[in-house]
This record gives sequence, structure tokens and C-alpha cells, in this order.
Amino acid sequence: MDKDIVEIINPSINLVKGFFSNACGCEIKYKNRLDLGMVLCEVSAACYAKYTTNKVQAAHIQICKENLKSNKARAVIVNSGCANACTGELGLKNAEDITKKVAEVFELDSPSDVLLCSTGVIGRQLPMDKVFSGIDKLKSIIREENEKNFALAIMTTDVVDKIVGVKVKSAGGEYTIVGTAKGSGMIHPNMATMLGFVFTDVSIKDYLLKRAFDESVEKSFNSVTIDGDTSTNDTAIIMKSGLANNEEIIDTAGEEYKLFCEALNFVNTALAKKIAIDGEGATKFIEITVENAASDQDAKKIAISIAKSNLVKTAFYGEDPNWGRIICAAGYSGVDFDFTKCSLKFDELTVFKDGEPAQYAEKDAKNILKKKDIKVTLDMNAGKTGKWTVWTCDFSIDYVKINADYTT
Amino acid sequence: MDKDIVEIINPSINLVKGFFSNACGCEIKYKNRLDLGMVLCEVSAACYAKYTTNKVQAAHIQICKENLKSNKARAVIVNSGCANACTGELGLKNAEDITKKVAEVFELDSPSDVLLCSTGVIGRQLPMDKVFSGIDKLKSIIREENEKNFALAIMTTDVVDKIVGVKVKSAGGEYTIVGTAKGSGMIHPNMATMLGFVFTDVSIKDYLLKRAFDESVEKSFNSVTIDGDTSTNDTAIIMKSGLANNEEIIDTAGEEYKLFCEALNFVNTALAKKIAIDGEGATKFIEITVENAASDQDAKKIAISIAKSNLVKTAFYGEDPNWGRIICAAGYSGVDFDFTKCSLKFDELTVFKDGEPAQYAEKDAKNILKKKDIKVTLDMNAGKTGKWTVWTCDFSIDYVKINADYTT
Repeated sequence: MDKDIVEIINPSINLVKGFFSNACGCEIKYKNRLDLGMVLCEVSAACYAKYTTNKVQAAHIQICKENLKSNKARAVIVNSGCANACTGELGLKNAEDITKKVAEVFELDSPSDVLLCSTGVIGRQLPMDKVFSGIDKLKSIIREENEKNFALAIMTTDVVDKIVGVKVKSAGGEYTIVGTAKGSGMIHPNMATMLGFVFTDVSIKDYLLKRAFDESVEKSFNSVTIDGDTSTNDTAIIMKSGLANNEEIIDTAGEEYKLFCEALNFVNTALAKKIAIDGEGATKFIEITVENAASDQDAKKIAISIAKSNLVKTAFYGEDPNWGRIICAAGYSGVDFDFTKCSLKFDELTVFKDGEPAQYAEKDAKNILKKKDIKVTLDMNAGKTGKWTVWTCDFSIDYVKINADYTT
Repeated sequence: MDKDIVEIINPSINLVKGFFSNACGCEIKYKNRLDLGMVLCEVSAACYAKYTTNKVQAAHIQICKENLKSNKARAVIVNSGCANACTGELGLKNAEDITKKVAEVFELDSPSDVLLCSTGVIGRQLPMDKVFSGIDKLKSIIREENEKNFALAIMTTDVVDKIVGVKVKSAGGEYTIVGTAKGSGMIHPNMATMLGFVFTDVSIKDYLLKRAFDESVEKSFNSVTIDGDTSTNDTAIIMKSGLANNEEIIDTAGEEYKLFCEALNFVNTALAKKIAIDGEGATKFIEITVENAASDQDAKKIAISIAKSNLVKTAFYGEDPNWGRIICAAGYSGVDFDFTKCSLKFDELTVFKDGEPAQYAEKDAKNILKKKDIKVTLDMNAGKTGKWTVWTCDFSIDYVKINADYTT
């Protein structure tokens, strides 16, 4: 990472100029936990969002799409414990009513200044009285000092909270980026929804913010898979106050835009890795890199296919260097390639070379597989430089236990 | 089923006129089990095959493709315990040498009269001396009476053998179809390979045999999924001796071709269902039907997406009527549809109607989920009659245990 990008120890959204955040518990599903979080921006923030590709989309996605036509917002409110998906007209009305209530309580110009995200069980309606009283509570505490209440409130099956921040010291001045996310891994799960939120005070042209965010999401949040189940609720949002005093970044030429992209990518990638590490039932973190493919997109397809394979992931859980399953998963990725040219490594150990089993000591492979953090590198040797990295976890007995638990 | 199609109790390949089959143990991976099976046809049989779509294909697939250019063969030999996949030039030479050895020992015109299939661990070479001595053994026993040695020899992780046969009594005369298959579910598995073999003595034009087989494979073997991992070795083969004395079926008009298709489909579908029931770690058999979709292909895509979802399958294992996961899996199938029109049933109980949660008694849903055999019906209500059924099993702790076991 560039020396001008410094990771913040114990980051907080409140470190980003113009933003306040806090959360409260309103018993949407469980007692005694934070389940309603909110971030408020003092000024109208430039906002961009990326949503799930699932055709079945939660109510909040329709609201966000509508309210982000202007690419401006003042607040984002998030509840856990209820996905508000497959909830029909009532679910949509409830989502709208939340934006109205927030606008009213926080004296914003319009409900369209409010973004909304939900995560939890599909097919249940939100308990609106509880949510409304939560919004009232938030009014009195939103500006209170706190480190990561928002990050805690958005968790569902997550075991640990996920928050990452950087301070960028560029020639044009200093600015801050803080992101927080939730993934999957709980005691009583229903849907491994990914939500990501990034806040920054950088001064940058809006179209450049969008461009940098789009590219970064592909390489971070869209490069992590736990179980291949694309949620109805996945959403990633960036909000920019622009209140840092750095000289405005106005084009892609020069070092400033590049530095911003690097800093943003660091935050998003760190969050994506945290999601994989905290996957439901995970005991190992697996980084899969496909290189020298015909294109980056080919490399990504192959890497995702490997990362989604139950047979690959159970082998990692069993600490079994069963590399045939990796080659097999590459083979059904939908990408055309010549497997007789491929080579495969676990960390630095080559197990498959030019399409044939390599000579290696079984115990060396076993020792690598015993680690908690394993790198897999598949060299397609296709005469091009297409490359992609994805992150996943192993597939354990606990994944099945967690997800076989009864809904209610 | 048409009354002229009668299922055979305790079917044997040897009941099909012109075919002999047997198997022997030659310790390819384990001692004291059958692991090399062979079927010999007295005459040159018309043959068609369907292979895995995986880009990484086992050596035997290259051999079968080459040898089936003529669509004729006299024998098929199958080993379990070694997939002979990702084994390079040596693996291919070994496969060729087996066809040469069989042709020599059984005095066939050419090695190209021999088809070959392998299933087992990827990345290991075949122990050729053992296989060769097995072929010598088979020479002396191939015509011996036996019920299902071939079906036993092709098993890997399978718990039960899978063999289905019918006798068809048509106006044009009698004929027989017997099929056998292997799927997935074992003690020491490595790759859930599907192999299917169908033998018939029907007199029918070759192109009609091919057409009927192609259509039937789509609706049977290609409509079952255990874990979404498409093997490097999947192969389905049909062989026809034509030695029954029925009047040759020469066109698709009239009842005779229809009756043959129905009989063939019964055999293939029954085998496919047996594969799902015997899925690795399975405790429940799940039949998923998607109906009133925009097309049959849309219905199939959606049904397969549901059947592959880990979250859906762990919910069935947990006997949890968590229907939101089913709607979610339909949503990421890649098919465009309006989920506000959809309805979903567990057996006859509607749990989701016109895009909203239906009113039903939780205990009724729980009672259905407790069953060993569950039907899921998703009505897309898309104004068309597209329909497809797929079969799968639940996803249990035992699947993870089985597949986390060490390779060697």
C-alpha cells in the first residue's frame, strides 16, 4: 500500500467529517442487542449504490433505487433481524414509512433523503411500532460519541463486527475513508446477506467517486463467496460528504485519483476478506488467484467456480490436498480453456503442472492444508495476463448445523 | 405408465437379448470388492453417449468420443476406484491400452469396438497390471449367470446398487430395456461421478434411438443434482443389439415410438431418482417442480438453481419450512421473472401466494418437512406452460463428513 495511506486503528464512522452514526436495540428479532443503526450526514452527501443481481429483491432495494435517482442522500438507516423481502405491498409501504418517519424526526427536506437497508429472515413483516420507537431513540443519541455501534447493529450471523478505515495524506490534503460491512455466520441464521457501507469526506467529482466505487466493488465485495447463495438483500453504498479540505480531485490523470482508488480498494478489500474469514462455520480463510487467463473476466469466473464448490470447500475443511476437485471446478466454470497447460499451487507448493500430477511430498501438502490461511494459485498459462483473486472459507459441519436450525 | 410397459422385478442386463455382463475385483483401490465390470454384445450394437460438460474431461471420454464416431460398439468396460482424469499422456495411453487388451482377449475386430468408463479419485494413474489381469478374469466369466455384478462394480460412494428394467409388450412385438447407474454416496469419496448405461434389444432405426436417448437424458440424468459439482467423468451410454423380434420402429408417427420413449424414460428417470435418494449423506429425497414458466428451459434453470442451493438443502435437512430460501434461489437462477406472481407449495400446502407469505398452520408445514420424500412446486404464473422437474436430496452433516475425509 502507498505510504500516504495509513490504516486507522479502531476506526469509527464518526471520524469521517460530516458523518454521525449510532444504533439502538428495538427487539426486531432478539432482545438485548443493537438492531437498528443509522448514519446521518450534516450535508447532502453524494451517494452511489450497488445491489444484488437476484431477481427477487427486498423492499429496501426498491426504495434505495428510487431515492438515489438524484445520487444524493442525508441518511442511511439499517435494521437487522428482518429482511423485509417477499413481503408484498405491505413490506414496500413499511419501507416507505420508515423513510418518512426518519425524514420527519431528523427534520430532513424529504423522505427521498433517506436510504434504507434490511437483513434477516425472508418473508416476515417488520414490527413497525418497534422500528418507529427506535427511530425516536436514535434522534437523541445520533451525535453521541461511540466507536462502532452501527457496525454492531447490522450484524446477523456474523461473529465479529467488520469496520475498516484509512487516513489518506495526499499532496492535495488529507481525507478519510471508513467502511463497515456484514456477511454471514451466526447462531440462528436465515440468509447470508452482504451489506457494505463506505463513508468518506474526500473532495472529488461525483462521477469519479462512482467510477472508483464501481471498479472497487467488483474486486472486493463481488469477489467473496461463502455458499454461492446470492441474497435478495445484498447492497453496497458509498456516501461522500466532501467536507475534507483536500484539493478537489477532478480527473483520472495524475496521482490523486489513483491514490484515492487505492485507499478505497484497501477499505473494501479488507472488509470483503473479513466477510470470508467470518463465513458461517468457517475454520479456514482461502484466497484463490487465477492468473495468466485469457481475460480478467475468465479468471474471475474460474476463481468463483472454485470458491463455490462444496467438494473443494469440504476438502479444505478436512485438510485434504485433493487438488483434483479444484481442477474439476475450474472445468465447469463455463470458461473454455486447455487444462493440459494449467498448473496449480497450494501456497508455494506445485501439485499439478502442465496438466499432469506434479511430484511433491504428501506431508508438505498436508502441512500447508493445516494452516488457517491458505493461498491457491491456478496458472492457466493461456498466453494472456488475465488475473483475479477471490476470497472464501472452508465448508464445515458447523455450516450445516447453523443453517439447519429452525427459522423461528 | 402405459399398461404395455411392465417393470421387471430383479432386472439383469443379461435379460436383454444379445448382452452378457459380469464383473470381478482387481483391487484398483480397495480389496474384496468388484471394481471392474464389463458388458459384451454378441453383435455390433448401435451406441450413443452423452458426456459431462466439464472442460476437464477424463481420459475415457476422449476414447469413447473417438470410438463412437461409427456409433457402433461391441463392449463397454468400467472401472471404479480411479477416475483416470488429469492424468496426462500416460492416462490416455493407459485407456487406449485397455481397449486394445479387451479387443484382443475377447477377439473383437478392433479396439474401437470397445467403450471405456472410469470413476474414482482424480489425478491417479490406473494400476494397469491389475486391470489387465481383471480383463483376463472377465474372459472366463462374462457369460456366467449373475444378477447385477456389473451394477455393483461401478459403485463408488453409492450405498445401494441402481438397476432398473422394463419389458415392453407392443403391438409390434416384445422388447426389453435395462439400465444401470452410479451416483454419489460412499465412505471414502472423491468425486461424485454419474455414470449411466442403458441396454436394449429393441429393433428401431438408429437415429430414432439417438433422438429418444437425447431427449430422455435431459429429463432424467441431467435433471438430478447432489452438490452442483459437475464431474470430469459423467457419461451416459445406450447400446442396442436390435435382437428382439419386434417390428422395427421406423418413424416418430404412431404409437410404437411413443411407447419406446415412455419405456426408456421410465428406466432413466427411475435411475436418476435412485441417484438422488442415494446422494452423499442424504436423509431426504426432494422433488422440485417448476410450472407455468415462460419456457421448459426457464423452468429447468429455476428448478436446478433451487436444487443446488446449500441454504435450501440444509433447511430440508433441518426440517425447516424456510421457504424464503427457495424463492431466493429462484431469483438468482438467471431467469427473468416477476416474483410477485409466484406461488409455492410444500406437497399440497401453499406457503407463498402471489408474491406474499400465505396463511398456513406452522405445524402443517413442519409435518410435511418431517417426511422422507417431499414435493416442492413453484408456480411461476407467467402465462405460459413451461414445466420441469428435478430431483435432489437434502444436505446433511454426513455430506461434509464424507467429503472432508482424506483422499488416501
